[in-house]
Amino acid sequence: MAPTSSRIKLKPPFQLGQLNHWVGGILEGDPELVIKGVASIEEAESGDLVFAEDERHRQHAQSTPASAVVVGLDAPAASTKPVIRVAKPRQAFSEILALFIPPVEVEKGVHPDVALDATTTVAESATVMRGAVIGRRVKIGRNSIIYPLTYIGDDATIGDECVINPQVTVCREVHIGNRVIIHPGAVIGSDGFGYVPISGSLAKVPHIGTVEIGDDVEIGANVTIDRSKTGATQIGAGTKIDNLVHIAHNVKIGAGCIIVAQVGIAGSVTVGKSVILAGQAGIKDHIEIGDEAVVLAQAGVIGDVEPGTQVSGYPARPHLQKLREQAMIAELPELRRRVKNLEKQIEELKSGMVTHTDDRS
Amino acid sequence: MAPTSSRIKLKPPFQLGQLNHWVGGILEGDPELVIKGVASIEEAESGDLVFAEDERHRQHAQSTPASAVVVGLDAPAASTKPVIRVAKPRQAFSEILALFIPPVEVEKGVHPDVALDATTTVAESATVMRGAVIGRRVKIGRNSIIYPLTYIGDDATIGDECVINPQVTVCREVHIGNRVIIHPGAVIGSDGFGYVPISGSLAKVPHIGTVEIGDDVEIGANVTIDRSKTGATQIGAGTKIDNLVHIAHNVKIGAGCIIVAQVGIAGSVTVGKSVILAGQAGIKDHIEIGDEAVVLAQAGVIGDVEPGTQVSGYPARPHLQKLREQAMIAELPELRRRVKNLEKQIEELKSGMVTHTDDRS
Amino acid sequence: MAPTSSRIKLKPPFQLGQLNHWVGGILEGDPELVIKGVASIEEAESGDLVFAEDERHRQHAQSTPASAVVVGLDAPAASTKPVIRVAKPRQAFSEILALFIPPVEVEKGVHPDVALDATTTVAESATVMRGAVIGRRVKIGRNSIIYPLTYIGDDATIGDECVINPQVTVCREVHIGNRVIIHPGAVIGSDGFGYVPISGSLAKVPHIGTVEIGDDVEIGANVTIDRSKTGATQIGAGTKIDNLVHIAHNVKIGAGCIIVAQVGIAGSVTVGKSVILAGQAGIKDHIEIGDEAVVLAQAGVIGDVEPGTQVSGYPARPHLQKLREQAMIAELPELRRRVKNLEKQIEELKSGMVTHTDDRS
Repeated sequence: MAPTSSRIKLKPPFQLGQLNHWVGGILEGDPELVIKGVASIEEAESGDLVFAEDERHRQHAQSTPASAVVVGLDAPAASTKPVIRVAKPRQAFSEILALFIPPVEVEKGVHPDVALDATTTVAESATVMRGAVIGRRVKIGRNSIIYPLTYIGDDATIGDECVINPQVTVCREVHIGNRVIIHPGAVIGSDGFGYVPISGSLAKVPHIGTVEIGDDVEIGANVTIDRSKTGATQIGAGTKIDNLVHIAHNVKIGAGCIIVAQVGIAGSVTVGKSVILAGQAGIKDHIEIGDEAVVLAQAGVIGDVEPGTQVSGYPARPHLQKLREQAMIAELPELRRRVKNLEKQIEELKSGMVTHTDDRS
Repeated sequence: MAPTSSRIKLKPPFQLGQLNHWVGGILEGDPELVIKGVASIEEAESGDLVFAEDERHRQHAQSTPASAVVVGLDAPAASTKPVIRVAKPRQAFSEILALFIPPVEVEKGVHPDVALDATTTVAESATVMRGAVIGRRVKIGRNSIIYPLTYIGDDATIGDECVINPQVTVCREVHIGNRVIIHPGAVIGSDGFGYVPISGSLAKVPHIGTVEIGDDVEIGANVTIDRSKTGATQIGAGTKIDNLVHIAHNVKIGAGCIIVAQVGIAGSVTVGKSVILAGQAGIKDHIEIGDEAVVLAQAGVIGDVEPGTQVSGYPARPHLQKLREQAMIAELPELRRRVKNLEKQIEELKSGMVTHTDDRS
Repeated sequence: MAPTSSRIKLKPPFQLGQLNHWVGGILEGDPELVIKGVASIEEAESGDLVFAEDERHRQHAQSTPASAVVVGLDAPAASTKPVIRVAKPRQAFSEILALFIPPVEVEKGVHPDVALDATTTVAESATVMRGAVIGRRVKIGRNSIIYPLTYIGDDATIGDECVINPQVTVCREVHIGNRVIIHPGAVIGSDGFGYVPISGSLAKVPHIGTVEIGDDVEIGANVTIDRSKTGATQIGAGTKIDNLVHIAHNVKIGAGCIIVAQVGIAGSVTVGKSVILAGQAGIKDHIEIGDEAVVLAQAGVIGDVEPGTQVSGYPARPHLQKLREQAMIAELPELRRRVKNLEKQIEELKSGMVTHTDDRS
């Protein structure tokens, strides 16, 4: 099987032997084992192929439902799962992962029904589909795909190799980097939520800033990212944002973060690099979240979070402290019983030797 | 009044006598009483008609603000509200409910501005309105209505008698059953949120599965339902989903569930039949929720929930236990007072008879 | 600099001297200081101009990072920040704020590709852009702007000077007041979430009411507001709603409220005037929230909230009580230590004088 010529014909599911052949590995296990998908070790299910670059990950992989593992040449032979053994497991896994990417069936070019303003430039290799509406002075980069019914406002720029799905709104002046994926219904660059109370009514604060989305960012369905009052709301390169997340005006998010569904980040929050914000967490305005911090699901963060720490609960506190608090709360009935018992004993002691009463309830 | 000929002319509000006539019942109460709507007993307000098939529901109905009740022939005469008495209250109520359904004003057929690919088939009785964009190899069933500005991706199928409202996105290959209603802005079939960390960056996991929506499902405005990694994210027949709910990849939801607004369900969760997930609840990935379980509002579920049980809080626990914990927490100042009092008494006891001191704080 | 003739040429950022000239004030401070934006005192950052009408606000303004303050002629001279001194600071600030509003580049009139039904009326000064789909018997008022890819259903009315951004859905019969701004992806008037259980399945309750949006309301991106069962879901004049908020059927919200991102309000809730609902808060159905009440972030409100009070937590309680509870919980390990110590002392006391044992754990 010659990779360059046959790639177009391969379609999942695959047999393990095919995948091994594809990356030129050494197969230990049944070559006819069916592999339905690739996954991270944490999310692997039966039918999945995972990869493990070192011994720690290899052992972790063994404990998952994954069906097979890509490992290095030096991995011990004692695997209980089939393995593909290669010199560079990371690279081999990437090549296999690419086989699972569904082909995109698009025609290059701007659909004839789409009216482009003379001031707007679309790269020749880009695609703009029927029903998209593109503003003035817009730039769309090489190989980018704009799906139907998407709106790109005046002066917005879309980098190279982006995928902007249907029903997306990219507001005026917003800058989208390269290889950015935006899922349907997301809104990038709506006005920030800010008002000045003047004589009992609320005057709208003009939001003349914008939004800057870094390279390799992915933005989930129906996400909202507001434009900055001045300057730019920023999403760092490689950050991944799940569905229905809200990111307010003036927020700065670092590179490589994972922001899970329905998280809400209030105005002017700063999030470091490689931070994980788990589902439905909320971050108060003007908070700083340090690099590699983890905010657990549904946490309500009302103060700065130190780099590398893990917080949970409302108000969010170090997770271990919260666990201790939960344990203490579960123990409360027992604590009350002990107090009651003490009161009884005191009473007995006193009745046996003293005569005055007291205000005990 | 002959139902078949006059139905078209009836419009709410109705007089109770009209409704009684419509179902051929026996009216007990004022025939000119105005009925503005129908409702469940739980949600009934003044002006509403409800129905009660048995004595328990009849008594419940009496305690609500509902204006009138449809009951069986055998119901006791002691009702304090006007009643329509019929042999089959359930069927009669359904017939009355149908009178309140607003007429839909649509022209059958595909709007001439909508370009259909030759590989796409739309039933003759279906409607596709202006501004909808339909992909290749799509199938749209009998009497279904596709509202304007909706996107249906390649290879998607829409069953019979569906209503797909404006601005909806049905992604490629998604299967929608019969009599499904999808409200505006919902996104069905966006990619699941999954990445493999490779050398410090996050490689996107291909999501080559799809979404299957069962018959009689209703999906609220701006809901997001992600496609599966392999196989299908599944929503069981008759399940109702409120606005802004997030359902992640590989989730399986049973039949007849009620999923209230802003609920978030993480990847690979299994939800049984007739489950209720109340507003803003969050479910951790890979959790199992048993049949007829109830997750109360804002609960954070981080472990399996047994069938028929009711959980609340974060982390979610049986609701009665949570109520006890809340009561214990409210009682804490009193408990501390009791401990302080004990300390004082011990001190008095000791000063009266012993001389050594101790490390009490 | 003559305001009337030069307004068109002014663009932010400004120098403080320019702004002072604009309002005819007395400048105390560096006229070349750069002012990038205007803000409320609460949200002010460096580069912002704020205003302070009285001594309390003036002192508050001094403590913020704001770069300059608009004050009255009678304000003390002791300001540590540059000031623009004017007779009417509120009016002067409004005039300056207007300078920061970005110009809107639209062509008046209905885009030739938009098909208008003969029964629909659009004011001559209004704008309907390409790709918008407008129903029958719709009314669009003076100077209103309907952006591309927006859907306005049959019988809906849009008042004067509204801005309806791209991808918005205004369902049939919905009434939008004057000067209303709706951000992209918002859905106004989807069906309420209500079912009657009939023989084990869920019959959809017809929602024949509508939604009424008052004057000067702003509605964030991807917000959902459901239509009423009968009557109307109502949003009071001047109320501001942030992104991804859910407002259910039959809700009544008073004037001048602030509803922050991702709040969820269940069916038939009544919210008074000038209420603040902070981010991710949830309100149970049929609850009443009094005027000027504040519900803090992530709170879960399950009972009525008195006017002017502040609640937090789940279940929501007066905020001070919740703070006390949190403090008590943090103190629990210490309380347990005190109980243990008491038990030890009792034991010592008893061993010194009594001989019977007891059931202490």
